[in-house]
Amino acid sequence: MATWSNASSLIVAAVILLGLSSASVAHGRRGRRSFVSSYDEPCMEMRLYLHDIIYDYSNSTSNSTSAAATKPTPLSTAVSNPGYFFGEMVVFNDPMTEGRALPPSPAMEEETAVRAQGVYLYDKKEAPNAWFAFSVVFNSTGRRGTLNLMGADLMSEKTRDLSVVGGTGDFFMSRGVATLSTDEVSADLSYFRVKVDIKLYECYV
Amino acid sequence: MATWSNASSLIVAAVILLGLSSASVAHGRRGRRSFVSSYDEPCMEMRLYLHDIIYDYSNSTSNSTSAAATKPTPLSTAVSNPGYFFGEMVVFNDPMTEGRALPPSPAMEEETAVRAQGVYLYDKKEAPNAWFAFSVVFNSTGRRGTLNLMGADLMSEKTRDLSVVGGTGDFFMSRGVATLSTDEVSADLSYFRVKVDIKLYECYV
Amino acid sequence: MATWSNASSLIVAAVILLGLSSASVAHGRRGRRSFVSSYDEPCMEMRLYLHDIIYDYSNSTSNSTSAAATKPTPLSTAVSNPGYFFGEMVVFNDPMTEGRALPPSPAMEEETAVRAQGVYLYDKKEAPNAWFAFSVVFNSTGRRGTLNLMGADLMSEKTRDLSVVGGTGDFFMSRGVATLSTDEVSADLSYFRVKVDIKLYECYV
Repeated sequence: MATWSNASSLIVAAVILLGLSSASVAHGRRGRRSFVSSYDEPCMEMRLYLHDIIYDYSNSTSNSTSAAATKPTPLSTAVSNPGYFFGEMVVFNDPMTEGRALPPSPAMEEETAVRAQGVYLYDKKEAPNAWFAFSVVFNSTGRRGTLNLMGADLMSEKTRDLSVVGGTGDFFMSRGVATLSTDEVSADLSYFRVKVDIKLYECYV
Repeated sequence: MATWSNASSLIVAAVILLGLSSASVAHGRRGRRSFVSSYDEPCMEMRLYLHDIIYDYSNSTSNSTSAAATKPTPLSTAVSNPGYFFGEMVVFNDPMTEGRALPPSPAMEEETAVRAQGVYLYDKKEAPNAWFAFSVVFNSTGRRGTLNLMGADLMSEKTRDLSVVGGTGDFFMSRGVATLSTDEVSADLSYFRVKVDIKLYECYV
Repeated sequence: MATWSNASSLIVAAVILLGLSSASVAHGRRGRRSFVSSYDEPCMEMRLYLHDIIYDYSNSTSNSTSAAATKPTPLSTAVSNPGYFFGEMVVFNDPMTEGRALPPSPAMEEETAVRAQGVYLYDKKEAPNAWFAFSVVFNSTGRRGTLNLMGADLMSEKTRDLSVVGGTGDFFMSRGVATLSTDEVSADLSYFRVKVDIKLYECYV
């Protein structure tokens, strides 16, 4: 068993045993070949910026990308007036970009190749604190598929970790962690940008 | 190490190493014995039809199985009037069947052995586009337990992949992919049927 | 290959192959070293009690920890009046404790080291039946991180299994099952306590 004592041969063994390598194109994986479980080093990393333009603030425009789906709860009115925190649920379909800037067109919904679609909610009485469940939808020739995320956005922390709980297409069966950090909030609160660092520890490569 | 070079012995090894096989009945697995991670071939497949009868349309009846939980958002009113799209959240408890037809009784909630329970929401301004998070609840003598699903239902695509992010009971620790395709929508939009092809790649067998 | 026939050496092998052991402090794991996939015995177990004090009942107080985010749906009014069941969505930020009792202070939100943050909804016409998606947030010196849960709370069953679909921090990449059982419901329905038995089958140890 001496050959197993070397770290790189262990990694090779894990790839072979878990991935049962194949050149098939099943599940839209398009030539990707081995499933890797690698808990010390990510098998895939990416940085994306999420842009949320909420409708319900002063300068609401038709290029808004999110909207509060619920009315203020009696609890929020009682304890956090005039803020609208506890219980607010927001549906969003936000563009995500690799750089900080949004593309110059207002027709973002059509033109952006990566979008975050789902819901977040506020769950604290005194201040914003959020919880997210959403899909990152990739729709370009380079990558197509989804990552599904869920977790607490503890806004008092500088960085917050959500779970990547699954994936489809090019991200078939992926799992990992997404680290959020707030990158900008506009003065009137109608826009925020969050940096999302995604690290996958189970993925096809 | 020569015996490891054969593909079938690799599969056997993966089953042994990952499953640590057991005949116990823990977790309601009832005699199921080995945990399999198999990313090229599903370890379990099933096809189910989801039937959604929404309450809020013209012919609403007490046998409806879903209801909009939210009011139209200002954004939906502004940009997609008279449609009610962006921000609508729908709670559902829908029967699922192996064939296309619903059972003949109106008391579906009591009589159907498989149900989908959870929430979907619409997240596009110009047209319906959805996001789902729900459990498939199995409650028959043949299979008992749940599968938990989450993902984007990109309705402009012919087929859409959601993630199976976990399971319980007979589906203990399962993961996989569920592919949705619309099978029928009634003219008045009060009913839709979606074909759900579930493939598990991590499961007990 | 004779040494592989022994169960304990199989477990050691699985730890080595899957975990690729490391003493790094990446991902806030703080010295935890090996990733274990163990489907017959949990790699980690804990029992927590979730306390939910809903705002919208008779004795609502500012120390409430949850609030209905939606209004009664027409379906709920039609079929389950005066109960408010089908379609009710509740946002919560509930303290969790290791013993049954809540700490004596009303300022629970600040003082409790474990909280459950997310949403539950009611999805049955005749009686309460729920679906949960939430994070368990640990914030003490002993353990820091989150577990992310999702699943059906079939309230007519004595125990109900939800999936633990991911984790972060000290619970990096965890998966497992959480078994819920109702421990107490107050006469006026303003308070319930649920026992949550969490068993992880994939985790860092």
